[in-house]
Amino acid sequence: MTVESSDHSPLWGESVGEADWWGVSAKLTNDMQTTTVTINTGSRPAAVDLTSDAASFVSGMGDGLLNVFVPHATAGVAVFETGAGSDQDLLDHLESLLPRDERWRHAHGSPGHGADHVMPALIAPSISVPVIEGILQLGTWQSIVLVDLNRDNSTRTVRLSFVQG
Amino acid sequence: MTVESSDHSPLWGESVGEADWWGVSAKLTNDMQTTTVTINTGSRPAAVDLTSDAASFVSGMGDGLLNVFVPHATAGVAVFETGAGSDQDLLDHLESLLPRDERWRHAHGSPGHGADHVMPALIAPSISVPVIEGILQLGTWQSIVLVDLNRDNSTRTVRLSFVQG
Amino acid sequence: MTVESSDHSPLWGESVGEADWWGVSAKLTNDMQTTTVTINTGSRPAAVDLTSDAASFVSGMGDGLLNVFVPHATAGVAVFETGAGSDQDLLDHLESLLPRDERWRHAHGSPGHGADHVMPALIAPSISVPVIEGILQLGTWQSIVLVDLNRDNSTRTVRLSFVQG
Repeated sequence: MTVESSDHSPLWGESVGEADWWGVSAKLTNDMQTTTVTINTGSRPAAVDLTSDAASFVSGMGDGLLNVFVPHATAGVAVFETGAGSDQDLLDHLESLLPRDERWRHAHGSPGHGADHVMPALIAPSISVPVIEGILQLGTWQSIVLVDLNRDNSTRTVRLSFVQG
Repeated sequence: MTVESSDHSPLWGESVGEADWWGVSAKLTNDMQTTTVTINTGSRPAAVDLTSDAASFVSGMGDGLLNVFVPHATAGVAVFETGAGSDQDLLDHLESLLPRDERWRHAHGSPGHGADHVMPALIAPSISVPVIEGILQLGTWQSIVLVDLNRDNSTRTVRLSFVQG
Repeated sequence: MTVESSDHSPLWGESVGEADWWGVSAKLTNDMQTTTVTINTGSRPAAVDLTSDAASFVSGMGDGLLNVFVPHATAGVAVFETGAGSDQDLLDHLESLLPRDERWRHAHGSPGHGADHVMPALIAPSISVPVIEGILQLGTWQSIVLVDLNRDNSTRTVRLSFVQG
């Protein structure tokens, strides 16, 4: 997994909002903390654990929601247990739920690739996780996982965004 | 598609929060930007692209998360590629995943309508999309789509809400 | 259903952010409102309505997003209509979508328990609901529902978090 990171904004950036204060109108507020991570998913269906990237990103950021978003039309983000077989169970079972056969109108690339384009309706490309004092509030067995069935695209971007509570 | 819009709050509205400042306690903060859009989905299962409504809504709003929420019990919101067949692929395949037969306890309206009520457990009625400088951070091929299997209700409301980062 | 509640932070807590003001840098901002609710789900698959807990939590909190998150690897959160059969329809149908047989690599506990670990990829453990003036913007027939197939764990925690708009 290759990771490249590009911060959009410095911590507690320029002023944007407005507030009344002693009858004076003034501007204040933060830009959103957001970054992208580049993932190499290879040429097979992949379930890539993003938890450590996400945990590093929110470290020191206080309370809020982390949103994990994949800007790709054939990928999703799920939260479940990895490392005990469920990652492969999910990838295999998706072929049962979304068979790679001739049924799909959307037909290009690998056979059955139309299934990859329906997948994100079931495993959405966006999930939010609460953060307290810079720590993801995941359960013991939960991981944040990029799910990517696409055999034809081996490089994926994931956007991590933190909205302060 | 009919679009009606009603802003809940002015930009950077009244004070709500509190902060210490030079030992003085004062109130500040923004109301949430939120609006509803009315969609005519017709009397057939529909996948309606909401991307341009969403993009217009967040235009000029800075950084944050856009939440798209449908307050209906037989609709969901998905992010996937439209216009290349996947919208119809999804609608058709949902009848395979959730057959419109006699299995459902929840039985009223059109035959198999109980399936429409289970659908939002798979395609949730809520999704959040990151926004930077007023621009949705969708991928090139991603659209925000209202998915509505219900044949018995042709008018849908979608709520767009922007939480600043 | 047993409910225990523990507030993480007081309303409008300590300062975190920074803003320029008359050339002076000062700190301000709120902690996130967040709490956990403990649910007894029994030893059968369960769909537990969390709406009243969620409504109580956001009451008086102004505008924003409520995030409902379950920190468990075999549970999800859905928004759909309860009380008319769809809750049981969903639980039954999940056994059709995710059969409790020998196919799963992740095998421990009850037979077919591997299915419980794939479920959260389809019904995510996180959902966000818009709130206006302390009121959940759910539709008339929508409820927020904890979906838990796990027969082996009867106590569940749900985290409610409010991010101000």
